[in-house]
Amino acid sequence: MRGFFIGRFQPFHEGHQTMVEQIAHDVDELVLGIGSADQSHTMNDPFTPGERIMMITKTLESLDLTTYAVPIEDLNRNAVWVSHVQSMSPHFDVAYSNNPLVVRLFEEAGMEVRSTPMIRREELEGSRVRDRMRRGEEWKHLVPDPAVEIIEEIDGVSRIQQVSDSDANGS
Amino acid sequence: MRGFFIGRFQPFHEGHQTMVEQIAHDVDELVLGIGSADQSHTMNDPFTPGERIMMITKTLESLDLTTYAVPIEDLNRNAVWVSHVQSMSPHFDVAYSNNPLVVRLFEEAGMEVRSTPMIRREELEGSRVRDRMRRGEEWKHLVPDPAVEIIEEIDGVSRIQQVSDSDANGS
Amino acid sequence: MRGFFIGRFQPFHEGHQTMVEQIAHDVDELVLGIGSADQSHTMNDPFTPGERIMMITKTLESLDLTTYAVPIEDLNRNAVWVSHVQSMSPHFDVAYSNNPLVVRLFEEAGMEVRSTPMIRREELEGSRVRDRMRRGEEWKHLVPDPAVEIIEEIDGVSRIQQVSDSDANGS
Amino acid sequence: MRGFFIGRFQPFHEGHQTMVEQIAHDVDELVLGIGSADQSHTMNDPFTPGERIMMITKTLESLDLTTYAVPIEDLNRNAVWVSHVQSMSPHFDVAYSNNPLVVRLFEEAGMEVRSTPMIRREELEGSRVRDRMRRGEEWKHLVPDPAVEIIEEIDGVSRIQQVSDSDANGS
Amino acid sequence: MRGFFIGRFQPFHEGHQTMVEQIAHDVDELVLGIGSADQSHTMNDPFTPGERIMMITKTLESLDLTTYAVPIEDLNRNAVWVSHVQSMSPHFDVAYSNNPLVVRLFEEAGMEVRSTPMIRREELEGSRVRDRMRRGEEWKHLVPDPAVEIIEEIDGVSRIQQVSDSDANGS
Amino acid sequence: MRGFFIGRFQPFHEGHQTMVEQIAHDVDELVLGIGSADQSHTMNDPFTPGERIMMITKTLESLDLTTYAVPIEDLNRNAVWVSHVQSMSPHFDVAYSNNPLVVRLFEEAGMEVRSTPMIRREELEGSRVRDRMRRGEEWKHLVPDPAVEIIEEIDGVSRIQQVSDSDANGS
Repeated sequence: MRGFFIGRFQPFHEGHQTMVEQIAHDVDELVLGIGSADQSHTMNDPFTPGERIMMITKTLESLDLTTYAVPIEDLNRNAVWVSHVQSMSPHFDVAYSNNPLVVRLFEEAGMEVRSTPMIRREELEGSRVRDRMRRGEEWKHLVPDPAVEIIEEIDGVSRIQQVSDSDANGS
Repeated sequence: MRGFFIGRFQPFHEGHQTMVEQIAHDVDELVLGIGSADQSHTMNDPFTPGERIMMITKTLESLDLTTYAVPIEDLNRNAVWVSHVQSMSPHFDVAYSNNPLVVRLFEEAGMEVRSTPMIRREELEGSRVRDRMRRGEEWKHLVPDPAVEIIEEIDGVSRIQQVSDSDANGS
Repeated sequence: MRGFFIGRFQPFHEGHQTMVEQIAHDVDELVLGIGSADQSHTMNDPFTPGERIMMITKTLESLDLTTYAVPIEDLNRNAVWVSHVQSMSPHFDVAYSNNPLVVRLFEEAGMEVRSTPMIRREELEGSRVRDRMRRGEEWKHLVPDPAVEIIEEIDGVSRIQQVSDSDANGS
Repeated sequence: MRGFFIGRFQPFHEGHQTMVEQIAHDVDELVLGIGSADQSHTMNDPFTPGERIMMITKTLESLDLTTYAVPIEDLNRNAVWVSHVQSMSPHFDVAYSNNPLVVRLFEEAGMEVRSTPMIRREELEGSRVRDRMRRGEEWKHLVPDPAVEIIEEIDGVSRIQQVSDSDANGS
Repeated sequence: MRGFFIGRFQPFHEGHQTMVEQIAHDVDELVLGIGSADQSHTMNDPFTPGERIMMITKTLESLDLTTYAVPIEDLNRNAVWVSHVQSMSPHFDVAYSNNPLVVRLFEEAGMEVRSTPMIRREELEGSRVRDRMRRGEEWKHLVPDPAVEIIEEIDGVSRIQQVSDSDANGS
Repeated sequence: MRGFFIGRFQPFHEGHQTMVEQIAHDVDELVLGIGSADQSHTMNDPFTPGERIMMITKTLESLDLTTYAVPIEDLNRNAVWVSHVQSMSPHFDVAYSNNPLVVRLFEEAGMEVRSTPMIRREELEGSRVRDRMRRGEEWKHLVPDPAVEIIEEIDGVSRIQQVSDSDANGS
């Protein structure tokens, strides 16, 4: 059985890893859909799809689970979102999400969706991690080691600090 | 003479119906342009274009006026908006709106635009109706019966409640 | 029961009318999806969506069948085409088409599709009618009277003749 | 009085220059709209908008005429093309073209369009010049000196030869 | 040497002019990239690209510097922004900006970027000028005379006042 | 060292596999960019990105090489293509291609590109394999076993036969 889990993974953090480990009990293979793949270099979406593929793949390669990291570009039309995801991703039997819109869209399309109590809390960690990076605080304990390495290689913290200045000043 | 009236109709409510009845005194035929046709399943735009076509058509079929319900997708370029509307819609002689941007765009294109004192107030009812649906309050007295039926058929209130949770939690 | 029939209707001709009359035996309501709605002023797609809505509506208003004329813009992604159509159109129970791609896409989405032996032949009449217009030959016997009137009102034959020159000369 | 002349200028050649000189008798200022501005690196559209701006500006700077070189991206919707051009360009009073589609679109929008017998023939020179470049034949006598210089600076002939191989082999 | 300076120029004001005069000491030619070229008729982006080209060109024609005013449409993908700018603009050797995101994107692409202490302050003047226009206050001393003339010709102040009403009322 | 190889992989065939095996001598990791990722269900592009990810991953998992299968959607702007690819893909040091346009674009961007004599011939096999499928001829000896399995699971041959009928009949 193959599962599907969507996130923006900005960055891939410990919460994501925990969740993947939980889902691994249920499925043989897992697709990680990388949402907002067309966005990068903003406070909310600092990392490119390629950088996020690396964080996910390098972190999960030690796990005993076949995973696929698939960028999903925004079409900005909720009504076709499920079809879009289904065409970009290897076929999957069940979707994992606690995001109410995602749950609704999969349900209206007749797909099985499962939620975990942990997911919501973990999702929120994304902005917490980025805020810590922006303020120059400690963040590495919240992110798996292989993802830390990639962020350092691309000088990711300075990128977040620089683009967050833009957000503050308007254009 | 044919008139044109643009709205998002999320949902089609009593205010819209009153306005159509007023415009019916002036014109033989009326085009209802369904704005933001590419949007659905959000707090501001919960219903699909197809669902909105049904609400409009079923509500107005008892009226002695030939009407056309035409979805208008956003091109996100104000400078070509009037041309876009003119190509999507049957030819019209006069546009009805109280939205200052819409009025300005039609005026710069040399089209006749008419306003009604009622329109503004009625326009505001859209968000009021959606808020009532979201909070589980009474809303059916604000919406024509045929539109109520369609909203119930598609389980529209639960959709609004579910996607409004997403808005609250961010992504 | 509601049916769905997609075409480009460039222009709406007798073949389309015959087909709608046949489908009328099976359904209570019929949606006519106007394909390639973003195209106009070319040899293959001379008429705007608004002009095509008028041809369809004026021709079918004498018929004892509730019809909806709904423009469908191209998204240029076959994989989401069915979802796109379903969101733009009032809900339908069965689709009518003899176009093999359309049939395939509906079937992969689990929708019922019906074909009629007549449809293919009639579809081909579109380009035959346009060729006659371009060459200044007789064409009005192939098009219902209300559609003829609209084409004459917008000076449609001269438009086809003029844009077909462009096609011949390249750009 | 300000005129508008649209072309793809792939490259800007002697025919274009002659035409601009003719139009200069009628107008005080001239906008050169650079069509298909989103295309480059193909056999039909080898040069970028920036490269085409340079060819036009450097060639015409000796002329006693105020000119503007304005890239116009394709929106792929003929129905809004005139509005799009009008918003991208400084205001103009008259358009110059012999392209039948362009003429038709401006006329339907109520704009004055003028044609010159020379224009058509000159337009055809674009592909003739590119063919000569592709085959390694003499081409510099067909292109104004300042444009020749720019094409050589960017190694334009080798670009055309290389991308034309792609066209030949399909993808 | 050719420089590149990006702005939205809504409108072109004294701060922009001062900056161009400063940059003129360093370069032989200057490209002014007109950002958000697809936007107009909003409170933040009231003027069309064509109107902004006119303000820039008419103001700078007295300057002893070759300038190019080039509209740059948003692609909404930061990762390809530098390539997009480079293809739309004549080749440039150095970019001028104090916007941290712009600086970051050019730096990651290996381009030289220079900043001036003045630029930031001047950038902020854009919204200050628009606010004054909206409130009916004095604004002409903040805008070069040729740009003032263009704004008056197109009735720009009334446009800002009208569309700012729309912003206030939502849709 | 990481390499990048772009193809449409419609389907992934023996020629692709041979090429990957050759490239494996030079690199530690290889990204397979899946071009035209937004296309499917046509004669030239029958398979979805998700189906192509599966063919690639299942075929290459026995190889001693870390591979990434990354869908690349068309932006239809050659000038930003390299940046687009670089943002979607994990960082790579060298690109492999014999397609002259791809080679040109990477070279103009200053990237190293390598070609292999085999690649051209193998590329051509894509259409040969699809033609055999369409005509009901033998094709499985041209496609690696894991890809054959996936094509059979999704009933791929009948899809090609059905959509090729559409191509033949026009629309």
